[in-house]
Amino acid sequence: MRVTRVNVEPPGVSERADLLAAEEPLGIRIDGRAVSLTMRTPGDDLDLAAGFLVSEGIIASAADIASIRVCDGQRCGHDHDGHDVGDAVGNIVDVTLRPGLTVRPGLGRAFLTSSACGVCGKASIEDLHVPGRFDLFNDRVEVAAEVLAGLPDTLRHAQRVFERTGGLHAAGLFSAAGELLAVREDVGRHNAVDKVVGWALQADLLPLTGRILLVSGRASFELVQKAVLAGIPVLAAVSAPSSLAAQLAADAGLTLIGFLRGRSMNVYADLERVSVLRWVRN
Amino acid sequence: MRVTRVNVEPPGVSERADLLAAEEPLGIRIDGRAVSLTMRTPGDDLDLAAGFLVSEGIIASAADIASIRVCDGQRCGHDHDGHDVGDAVGNIVDVTLRPGLTVRPGLGRAFLTSSACGVCGKASIEDLHVPGRFDLFNDRVEVAAEVLAGLPDTLRHAQRVFERTGGLHAAGLFSAAGELLAVREDVGRHNAVDKVVGWALQADLLPLTGRILLVSGRASFELVQKAVLAGIPVLAAVSAPSSLAAQLAADAGLTLIGFLRGRSMNVYADLERVSVLRWVRN
Repeated sequence: MRVTRVNVEPPGVSERADLLAAEEPLGIRIDGRAVSLTMRTPGDDLDLAAGFLVSEGIIASAADIASIRVCDGQRCGHDHDGHDVGDAVGNIVDVTLRPGLTVRPGLGRAFLTSSACGVCGKASIEDLHVPGRFDLFNDRVEVAAEVLAGLPDTLRHAQRVFERTGGLHAAGLFSAAGELLAVREDVGRHNAVDKVVGWALQADLLPLTGRILLVSGRASFELVQKAVLAGIPVLAAVSAPSSLAAQLAADAGLTLIGFLRGRSMNVYADLERVSVLRWVRN
Repeated sequence: MRVTRVNVEPPGVSERADLLAAEEPLGIRIDGRAVSLTMRTPGDDLDLAAGFLVSEGIIASAADIASIRVCDGQRCGHDHDGHDVGDAVGNIVDVTLRPGLTVRPGLGRAFLTSSACGVCGKASIEDLHVPGRFDLFNDRVEVAAEVLAGLPDTLRHAQRVFERTGGLHAAGLFSAAGELLAVREDVGRHNAVDKVVGWALQADLLPLTGRILLVSGRASFELVQKAVLAGIPVLAAVSAPSSLAAQLAADAGLTLIGFLRGRSMNVYADLERVSVLRWVRN
């Protein structure tokens, strides 16, 4: 779009082209039932929907999904001749769960925890906590601080759109050795994480044992919960965590790292996975 | 809390005290009905709840609220002797609307737009758009670019907690002359805006004609909508807006400013309110 650049000193106004981070609504349906509407950056929508279902505790493996497809208002996964339109442009993802997988009666509640709910009468951490299926305490991966310190640069180099718009959050999944496995971007940090987790689910990588999740910006309760539900043992953020994020991380056995900048970091929970001296000893 | 600071170079580990931005759930009830659960930083909870109701298009003046009070699980607004406990510590805000103010049948939907909804089958901008009561097109306030350029510094100086935790977003309300009227902080940017708007509502200042809202970070669709519903004609962000934010701003007659840093800014919609040369002419 055209944007007006205003300078105070020296005073001046100029027009120039500007690329904005795209934000559009995406609806998610399970077995024909509308369950979620999220504002997201279009792209990797199947990953986003799949990851969202993992984050809400509905599914935990690729086999839990019978079918997943993108629809628009009129067509849904099939064209007029009955052919699958696949990942075509559309603002709805329609998911069919595998036979036998029943969604718990309180499903609606799970989806409503971040902005609206039916459990407000007993608003507490316990209500918000979606129980995870993977036990992080058994994952004793060791990650060198040196490796962690290098991750933000790797993520930034992999972020194409951010450099052009300045408006996207990113989530990156790394091996314990610092190899970038996947990177996703979105106007919403939680969506970027869901996209990464959904990609991993569809590649049948869950639980993400021994992996590291890095997010641009801050680490909230919600992001810690997403990492726990995907079986990721280490969550690192470039900025600060919240109090509840640190608390949930400690409870779940997740290593939570904040202020990962330059050559240092803060470790808020489960320090044992961070190895400081390994590279010194070599 | 105690946090472990890890240095890669020179290698070292040290313990130190760290203050984290607080994040806790807050439930909002209208006339006894649970309608929302949001993760927020405790403090200014009545403002947050009031502003949330403005942002959802439910109320538009202080007179629309018959009573608003903080509750915990047991007590709600009154102690054992029947006295009002007022703004006591608790994680529920209970709102009673004025007699005659009926909440529209689709109320549930409005609250579900950001993370969950019943309208996903027709996920579109129109569905997400909460109609505003105030007409921004009639508000022809003029703001000097020089004034705008000075706002981020003013906001930063007013941010007490951020300096200590690095984990809070801020929203500031300013006069057209750049005077700071209110500042609120929260782990969620949208909550910080709701807190400012709720404060203004309770001070009977709505619509916020001629005022400027400044947010730390980015400007999403949701923040533009909140500004429009509060009757604020100018929204400025330190970082980038999204595509949908720019589109809604243009549609609603809101002046949207992004990348407000140093001595310059980008204007994405309604440039006419920004005066570049006024101070030069003086």
